Order: sequence, then structure tokens, then C-alpha cells
Amino acid sequence: MDYNAASLALHEKSVGKIEVVSKVAIDNRDDLSLAYTPGVAQPCREISDAKSEVYRYTAKGNLVAVVTDGTAVLGLGDIGPEAAMPVMEGKAILFKEFADVDAFPICLDTTDVDEIVQAVKMIAPTFGGINLEDISAPRCVEIEERLKAELDIPVFHDDQHGTAIVTSAALINALKVVGKNLSEVRVVVNGAGSAGGAIIKMLLELGVTDILACDKDGILWQGNGANAPHLEALACQTNREKRKGSLVDAMIGSDVFIGVSAGNIVSREMVASMNTGAVVFAMANPIPEIMPDDARAAGAAVVGSGRSDFPNQVNNVLAFPGIFRGALDARAREINRPMTLAAAYAIAGIIKEEELTAEYVIPDALDRRVGKQVAEAVKQAAFESGAATRG
Amino acid sequence: MDYNAASLALHEKSVGKIEVVSKVAIDNRDDLSLAYTPGVAQPCREISDAKSEVYRYTAKGNLVAVVTDGTAVLGLGDIGPEAAMPVMEGKAILFKEFADVDAFPICLDTTDVDEIVQAVKMIAPTFGGINLEDISAPRCVEIEERLKAELDIPVFHDDQHGTAIVTSAALINALKVVGKNLSEVRVVVNGAGSAGGAIIKMLLELGVTDILACDKDGILWQGNGANAPHLEALACQTNREKRKGSLVDAMIGSDVFIGVSAGNIVSREMVASMNTGAVVFAMANPIPEIMPDDARAAGAAVVGSGRSDFPNQVNNVLAFPGIFRGALDARAREINRPMTLAAAYAIAGIIKEEELTAEYVIPDALDRRVGKQVAEAVKQAAFESGAATRG
Repeated sequence: MDYNAASLALHEKSVGKIEVVSKVAIDNRDDLSLAYTPGVAQPCREISDAKSEVYRYTAKGNLVAVVTDGTAVLGLGDIGPEAAMPVMEGKAILFKEFADVDAFPICLDTTDVDEIVQAVKMIAPTFGGINLEDISAPRCVEIEERLKAELDIPVFHDDQHGTAIVTSAALINALKVVGKNLSEVRVVVNGAGSAGGAIIKMLLELGVTDILACDKDGILWQGNGANAPHLEALACQTNREKRKGSLVDAMIGSDVFIGVSAGNIVSREMVASMNTGAVVFAMANPIPEIMPDDARAAGAAVVGSGRSDFPNQVNNVLAFPGIFRGALDARAREINRPMTLAAAYAIAGIIKEEELTAEYVIPDALDRRVGKQVAEAVKQAAFESGAATRG
Repeated sequence: MDYNAASLALHEKSVGKIEVVSKVAIDNRDDLSLAYTPGVAQPCREISDAKSEVYRYTAKGNLVAVVTDGTAVLGLGDIGPEAAMPVMEGKAILFKEFADVDAFPICLDTTDVDEIVQAVKMIAPTFGGINLEDISAPRCVEIEERLKAELDIPVFHDDQHGTAIVTSAALINALKVVGKNLSEVRVVVNGAGSAGGAIIKMLLELGVTDILACDKDGILWQGNGANAPHLEALACQTNREKRKGSLVDAMIGSDVFIGVSAGNIVSREMVASMNTGAVVFAMANPIPEIMPDDARAAGAAVVGSGRSDFPNQVNNVLAFPGIFRGALDARAREINRPMTLAAAYAIAGIIKEEELTAEYVIPDALDRRVGKQVAEAVKQAAFESGAATRG
């Protein structure tokens, strides 16, 4: 199928993908008087008296803003807020489809970090949560950190944490297939942008101790004067032996390769240089770091990618709908590390041990069980971690 | 019916009134690949190449932001952005119900004029139009003027222009009932806030020449040192004889009373002092300046109010859905005076001359013909006035 032409036709025919509809009927004068004036004054008064009542009488508690500045859209780069709209609408309908979250695109006409933070804070009263999307690194990290600190609703940058959660879930299951433990494997993460950084932090939380982070200049090492601050921070958390070298060097004798970088940069020889039982997640889109068939041919035991036309698709849709569903249901003030870890284990746990195979370490993107189980796990973790209060 | 209790129950049961749904199906892997990655990249590329394509491939062209800062909500005053949410959701569902416009509440956590302007400009890429709502006067006028100047999408402050349009429509028909012309009547407008100011400006455009504007201190007159700037501006456009006096004085010998002020401030005697064939639109909510029955008993020939339980309800829902429908259909860059005048005449024109009576000068709020006819009239006016380009 020619996805480009077909997608264009679909978008033109439906003129975008979202619509805003009413949950209540407006068929007669009484309906109008209840949903609008004069009756609507009463919920207004109740919320004015006690602000938290906004969750009882309005849609806020189920509304998520999908916020972008259009600077890092898919693999297309800085295409601006208007051109980002199809992706944000797509995200919105996946939120609704997989977790009944009402999500709405907010495409911002600014790329200034302070202005983005200010804009999101100003529109926050409408929303129960903020999903940041396709904002370029390293700005996205600062924007998320500042908004998390300043808002009392969940803020979640999907390109960082969604990718990290789904990758972690895939890795948990892949290591079961090859009979290795998280604490004993060497993991090479290629790509030190927002996704790579978030994956590394999550793997450390999961108990991985031996990580080599690479960017286009090779292995990151602590003390390299050429490191930008966010790269030095990653270097400090990885590469305990302070190795230097290229991606080729890093992969020799490693157990896991995780690519969030660019297409066609890993050769069969590089995969062949890994340990037996190698796991390769080549997630660059649309062209992976190495095509899945090539990775298998080179000896990788488990192979995943971002593509829907190969087994083991690492797709964020497995995470973000259920994560927000759980956070909103708990009325969590934030999405914290226990919640994201719970999400990763919930996704991995969808596949029973006896079902696990090299070609099935991650649930299908359309598996309707995932959103529900992630939501429940995230909700419980919110309560247990103190991000939300029961009752 | 106890609207307050029933409205509260309705809002709690449905947890607000809006939801964001998909216009396209996500039932299988191909659906996902077209609505989201990888297919979605193609509409993104098209828009990146030519920004106006955003109207072809996204929902932008049918999305209206209903923006408030919560400073002047209904008659409740400055209750804040959260407590304004039920009204904004109500507005959103009326947009959808009466004109198939997808409207979304944006409740802003700021009351600073500069910040409001900036916030709306920053979120504008998502929207095809901006409806300002329940922002206190005179700030609302400046905010609307600045946004109209700086944005290339329609910006419309409903509390000003929606009220002015529907009041004008009612007056056009009421004067037919009493056999007077717009150019020869004396009109008293009580209340010099945003609605009063907009009504006065629109009446002048319609050909009314003799207007007395009153506020709580009585008739506005040019040169009164106590006038705030926006009141002095109104005084300059009205009261050509520079009369001084109270509302009681103003009403003596007048033909039309238009109240956008406060409840119970007009007596039967004041109505009786008007000319024969008097028209009284007492639109304060929920308590009119004078109850409709009292106005009729005092001799008024045509009486209207904001209430749904009396004849001739002056309700903005007759205007804003069709106005935006027409502006969006034309892809107008603004909503200008010819478009608002066209809307007023379209609303008035719904009632045929032979149907007009003292109790039926304005269509019913639920009359489904109104939105369509307003939209068509506004669309044509947009083309003819140059607010939009045919094609």
C-alpha cells in the first residue's frame, strides 16, 4: 500500500481527524437551560467555592493537551506548528481510541522555551494533563522539567518516556527469551537525544548497570570536553570504564543494541560482533538502523523495530493512552518514575511466559488489553508512590 | 423546574459536556498507518511546503477556541478560569449543535491583557477562529482589537458583538411591529459595558441617530470629566444634544429601551413615560431590568428579555454558531462589520412580515433555520466585503 497517497486522501476526505462533540442532548428548551444559561451558573458557583469541584462538573479531568512547537516532528524535523497538526490530531484520536482520553492538539506558534512554558501554564486550567510531543532536544527536557515543577497536573513528554517505557517492556521480555538478566547485560544505546537519554535513565532504574551511550561521534565518556551538558550528564551515568571508541567498538561483545538514531548505520558485521543471544531494537523511523531481516541473518536472537511490517514493533501507542488513563483516574499530580516503571512491567506482562518467542516480545499495537492493564498498573503506582491520594 | 439542582446533576453525571472524538476509524494496522505513522508524514510534508494546506488536511478550519480568563462569567463576575469552564463547555456544545463547529474551551490562568493576547496568539495555529468570552470590560475591547490586528483568523468577542447582533435583529423586527423607522427613534441603552458599547456602535451602523447611553451615574455626556476613556468615546457617539440627567430622565419620551445592566432598576412608571409603541428589551440576567409582564402592563408594545420563560428571548445562540460557520466556510480572515450586519438582518429575516407579532420579533433559540441562514449571509458578506477570497 502507498501509505503516503492513501494517508493524504484520508486526511483530505475527513478534513482532519478530530471533532468536538457534546455528551449531553440539546433537544429542547429545558436542555438548553441546564447545559447553558441559566442552569450552568450552578456548577460555576460550586467550582468557584471549591476549585477541585472542576473535576466533578467539567471535562477537565479527562482532557489532555497534546502540545508541540513543531520543531521535531516525526523524522521531518522543524516543520512548524501547522505542519505538526496531523501528528497531534493522530495522537489525539489514539488517546480516545485506546483509553477514552479526550485529547486536543495545541500547536504553539513559538519555539522559545520560556514562552512555551508560559503558554502551557496559562492554558492548564482547561486540562487534566499535558502530553508534550515532538519538541526538539535538549529543549524538551528543560520544558518538561519546568512544567512538572510548576503545574499540579501530570506532564509527560512522550518522545522521552513513552519510548523508554515501551523499549524497556520489550527488553524485559527479550531477555527472558534469551535467558539473560537485566543486571548482567551490556546495553549499547545509539542516539543521545531525548529518547536515548530517557531510555538510559529508565534502564538504570530497571537494574541495568552496564550501558554504553553513543552519538554520531561514538561512545560518550565522562570528562570529554566536547560534551554538551546533557551529553556529559549521560556520560556520567554510563560507560563506567570510560571507554572511548566508535559505535563499531561499542557493539563488540555487547548483549543489547538499542537504536534511536538514524537509518542504515548498523551493518551485519556489527551485529555479528555482539554476544550470542543478542537483542537488537533498531527503532529509527521509517528506516531502521539495520533492517530486521538483516539483523536476524547476522545472528541476532531477538529483533525489534519501529515498523509495523516486521515483528516486535516498538510503538508508543502501547504506553501513552494507558499511562494518562491511569494518571487521570487516580487524579495524580504527576507521572513519576514508579508509574512509568509500572507501565513498562504492565506492557511486558501482557505476554505470558509461555507465549513469549523471539518474534513476540512486545504486544501488538492494536491489542486492546494493553491500555487497560497499563492504566490499572499506573493508577495503583500513583497511589502507592504518593502521586495521588486515594478516596 | 429547579434549574440549579438539575444542572448540577446533569454536569456531575456526564462529567462535563464535551468530548474529543475521531472522524476516522482505527480498526486495523492499515488504519493506524494512515491516521498515524508512517502515513501521517505526508500531510505534514504538504503543509510544511504550503502552510495554507493546513485547511485541507487538518481540523483547523473547523476548530474555534472559546477563550476566557474567567473575569466576567455570566452574572457571577470574576470567578476564575476553572469556574468558567462549565460556561465555555456549554458554548462549545452549542457551536457544534447549531452549526457543526468544533469548539474547544481555553480557560486562561492569567488576567493580564498582554499575557492573554500572547497566549491566544501562541495557540492560534491549531484554530480556524477565536471566540472571546466572559472577559471583563473594558479589557475585553482592547484584547479583541489587538488580536484582530495581529491574527489572520476571525476573532470575535461574543459578549460584545453577539449581543449586539441579536439585539439589533430584535429591534429591526420590533420597529416593524410598531411602525417606526430606525432613523427616527430615540433609543436608551442602559449599561455601558462591553455589550452596551457594542450595541450602540451597531445601532449607529444600522442608521439609528438618536441614542442616549446611560450607566449607573445616568446619561453619558461628552466632556464630562468623570468619564473613563471608553465612556467618553461612547458619549461622543451618542447624546448629540449633550443632555444631562438620570435614567429616569432619559426614558421620558424615548421609543426604545435596551437594558444590559442589572435587575429591577426600571419601574413601570419609567416605561409609562416612554412614547406610545414603546419597545423594551430588558436583558439583564437572570433578573431583567423590569419583568416582561410589568413592562407590558405599563404600556410597552413589544417586550423582550434574556429569559427563556418569556416571549422574545434575546439569546446569543442565535448569532455565534452561524457567524463562525459562515466565516469558517468562507475562510474569512476576520469578522467585520458587513458580516455582523448581515447576521443581524439574517436573524430578523427568519420571521416573515406576516408572522411578526409583538410576542414574536425574534426567532426561537432552538430554531434550526437560524444557524444556516446566518452562516450563508455571513459567508456572502465575507466575500463581498473582502474579508475572504472566493475560490
